[in-house]
Formats: sequence, C-alpha cells, structure tokens
Amino acid sequence: MAGKAAPLYRKVAGDLRAAITAGEYGSGARLPAEDELARTYGVSRGTIRQALGALRTDGLVTSRRGARRVVLGGGGARLQSFEELRSFARWARSQGEEPGGRTVAVDPGQATEEEAYHLRLPVGERIFRVLRVRTLSGVPVMVERTTYPERVGELVAAMDPGLASHADELEAHGVLFSDALHTIDVVPADAADAELLGCRAGDGLLRERRRSTDPAGLPVEWSQDRYLPGTVAFTVRNSSGSRAMGRSLNGS
Amino acid sequence: MAGKAAPLYRKVAGDLRAAITAGEYGSGARLPAEDELARTYGVSRGTIRQALGALRTDGLVTSRRGARRVVLGGGGARLQSFEELRSFARWARSQGEEPGGRTVAVDPGQATEEEAYHLRLPVGERIFRVLRVRTLSGVPVMVERTTYPERVGELVAAMDPGLASHADELEAHGVLFSDALHTIDVVPADAADAELLGCRAGDGLLRERRRSTDPAGLPVEWSQDRYLPGTVAFTVRNSSGSRAMGRSLNGS
Repeated sequence: MAGKAAPLYRKVAGDLRAAITAGEYGSGARLPAEDELARTYGVSRGTIRQALGALRTDGLVTSRRGARRVVLGGGGARLQSFEELRSFARWARSQGEEPGGRTVAVDPGQATEEEAYHLRLPVGERIFRVLRVRTLSGVPVMVERTTYPERVGELVAAMDPGLASHADELEAHGVLFSDALHTIDVVPADAADAELLGCRAGDGLLRERRRSTDPAGLPVEWSQDRYLPGTVAFTVRNSSGSRAMGRSLNGS
Repeated sequence: MAGKAAPLYRKVAGDLRAAITAGEYGSGARLPAEDELARTYGVSRGTIRQALGALRTDGLVTSRRGARRVVLGGGGARLQSFEELRSFARWARSQGEEPGGRTVAVDPGQATEEEAYHLRLPVGERIFRVLRVRTLSGVPVMVERTTYPERVGELVAAMDPGLASHADELEAHGVLFSDALHTIDVVPADAADAELLGCRAGDGLLRERRRSTDPAGLPVEWSQDRYLPGTVAFTVRNSSGSRAMGRSLNGS
C-alpha cells in the first residue's frame, strides 16, 4: 500500500478478501457476526460494515440476511465488471489492491494486416508493441501485449518501465480511453506467459482482447491480456431484446 | 441440419467458417474474390455476399476493403455477444450451427445456501439440478449445470432428454428469460467435464456462471456452463462513465 493512505475499511476488506480466498470461510458458510469481526480486526463495527459493503459489491458475500452474511462461491477470483470501461490500475484500486506493472519490452514495428485492421491504420504503418506484466499487491496476475498507434506508442515508450498505470499517464497527455470492444476466451500459456506468470506452458489462461477508442472513435490500443486462472472473473449484465423473444432466426 | 431447411447462405457461411477454422486461410490473409468464392461453392455472388456479411457480423472477416475481405484472428472460436441475452440454442442458430442438447441427469434436491441466495429462495427449498451436454452441429462444446426453482424444474424434468432448446420450450410454458448477470472465468475440467467433453481433467475451460431472471425480476435459473477452449469467445462492449475519468477512488 506504498505511497497512498487507503481508508481503513479498504484494508479490512482486503484482509477479509484474503481470508475468504484462502478458504478460511468456505463457500456457503456464514461469516462471523459484525461485532465479532470488529474484535478480530480491532476496528469499529462501522468500519466492518463498510468493508462488508465493499465485499458485497464484489459479489464475494451476500447482502445481510439476519445478523450475518454468507460467503459466495468464486474462490479467489476478484470480480471485474464490464458495466464500465476501467483501466486495470483503476479497477485494482477499487478492489483495495495495489496495482503494479513492469514493462518487459517496447518494440517499434510495422502494423500487420490484423493490427492495421484493429487500429484502422494502413498496413505497414509505424506502431509500437508493448509487453508488460501486471501485478496485484506485488503478485503477477496478467501478461499484457498491446499494440499502440505511433502517437500513443511514443508516449508509452518514454514512460518509466515500473509505472503502475499507463492509462493515467496517457490521460495526462490527453489520450483518453472512452469505449472498448472486448473478446474473452481461454488460451494455453506460451513460454513467455509461463515465465512471466510462474505457471506451466499449456495452462489455460483467461484471455481478454480489447480494442479501445478515444471519444472521437479513434483507436488508441489493440491489446491482448492473459490472466492466471483464479485471479480475476469478469462480470456482465444483459437483457433480452424484444427481438430475442421472437423466432425470426429461422424465418428469413 | 436435421429438420429445418436453413437458407443457402447460412450453409455457405458455415462452410467458409469451417475452412477458416481449419486454417485454410491464415489470420490476416485475404479471402478469394467474391466471384471466385461463388464458383468454388457453386452459388450466386449474392449468396456469397450474404454469407460474408454473416462472417463479418461474427468478427471473422473484415468489412470489404477493395475487392476482398481479410480473415481476422480468433481461430475457431465462434463469437457470442453479450449485447443481448440469448439462449445457447438461439445463439447457435444465429451462427448457422445446429444446436443440440443431451440431458445427462435431472435431480430434485434441496437448495444449498449458495443456490438459495442466487435463486432468492429459503435454504432447503425444493429445487432441480440438471446436468446437460450442449453440442454444435453434433460436436460437444459445453457442459451445463443448472439449478432451477421447483416450478421451472418440474417443467424441465418432463422434457425430452434430447431436446435442443429448453429455453424455447420453457417460453412456450410462459417462463421467460429476461435479464441475466454473467460471471466469466477459467476453471480446470473435472472428471465429469473430461468425460462429457472429451478433454483431459485439469484442462482449462471457459466458465460462464449466470443467474437469469424473468421480466418480473424473479430468478428462473442459476447456471454454470463450461466451454471447451477454442469453441466460443464472448464479446462485450463498454464505455467509460464520466466518473471513471475522475480520481475519486483514493479520495474518500
């Protein structure tokens, strides 16, 4: 938690999350009552209540039912909502985690047909490819491979390799991430993933590919992030359109 | 394609998708011109154009640039959009695939604390647990474990174990799937997954947990679906809220 003084409840939420993740309270178990937790953590009941509220927002515990809350499944995975586009660093901070990053490589190059398509550039245009490891409270959880158009890549190339948030720094330079299209699947870890994440090559990783655009609709990155299993789960809400209730699919 | 006569372009789209999936056209490669494809498949250019339009919607090929389209990455995974809530069967049909299902087990039981929470029932209430294998054009791609509240479970228990779409049948009985909250992560295949999907235990599967509610907000299912890698990728769009641009997270 270097640098910034996080509110106390967030520290307690982090400790409780760690205890749940470590399996101290099984899925479906009731958490101890608030005053018992307050004694355990040496804080007020109000702080416990705030911490539990944060865990509830994350989907780790139920709303209060009677005096106590119930631990939900999900194991150690921190939930990352797609309700709103947020950078890894901002999402991590909202979870009471300290985000970190280490830039492994920054390589200028020429856009392949696929990169050119996603970044809406001519094939062969100058781009930057950045390989980075992302950490939560010091632990590697994700490998990020991003292709930036030249104007954005030049800014990233000039950044401290240990910077926690490129997005914050880019925003300070007027590069905004406004909208994104994400594609989520599973891929086997390659040799680089295995080395950087400490897993075995071939292990299934949760992959998120993302094309982000600025408020004018101009692509600012084409990224492929690979998460260690059990570290993150993505959440999405949706609804059936009125069309979905019809049967037009086989009709035309 | 048993039973229903699918439009010709959908058949061509399926064949083209299979060719791309099989690696006949590498990622980034240009597809043959429309008239060449028309000759290859023995159909009109209009049919080819419709088929390519379907592949474009799936994110498998680019919009036309010049005379030809470019194959995008994504390998064999069929894209499943979260823009709209759709049943597996409806989604599959929209992809030109024939959805199938085989019910492996239907077990009445009593709601655990976790099931009770997700279905908003008292703990111990009567529920049904259904285990099912889902197929695309006859090939197993997903194992579905669903807990239904009693009134819905009774209907499912009475259905043909080979029925392709429970959702269609439930809808005919007035049970509507209106909204859902999805949680997506990776889990290792257990012994049942391995047997039903033909993979190895421990292989990473793409998992989608889902709580669906009807138009009145009442839960109608709590499901856990596990997909073989490479069969499906989920897509989501989102935007940064105005709040996301602020820095309130460390402030309060």
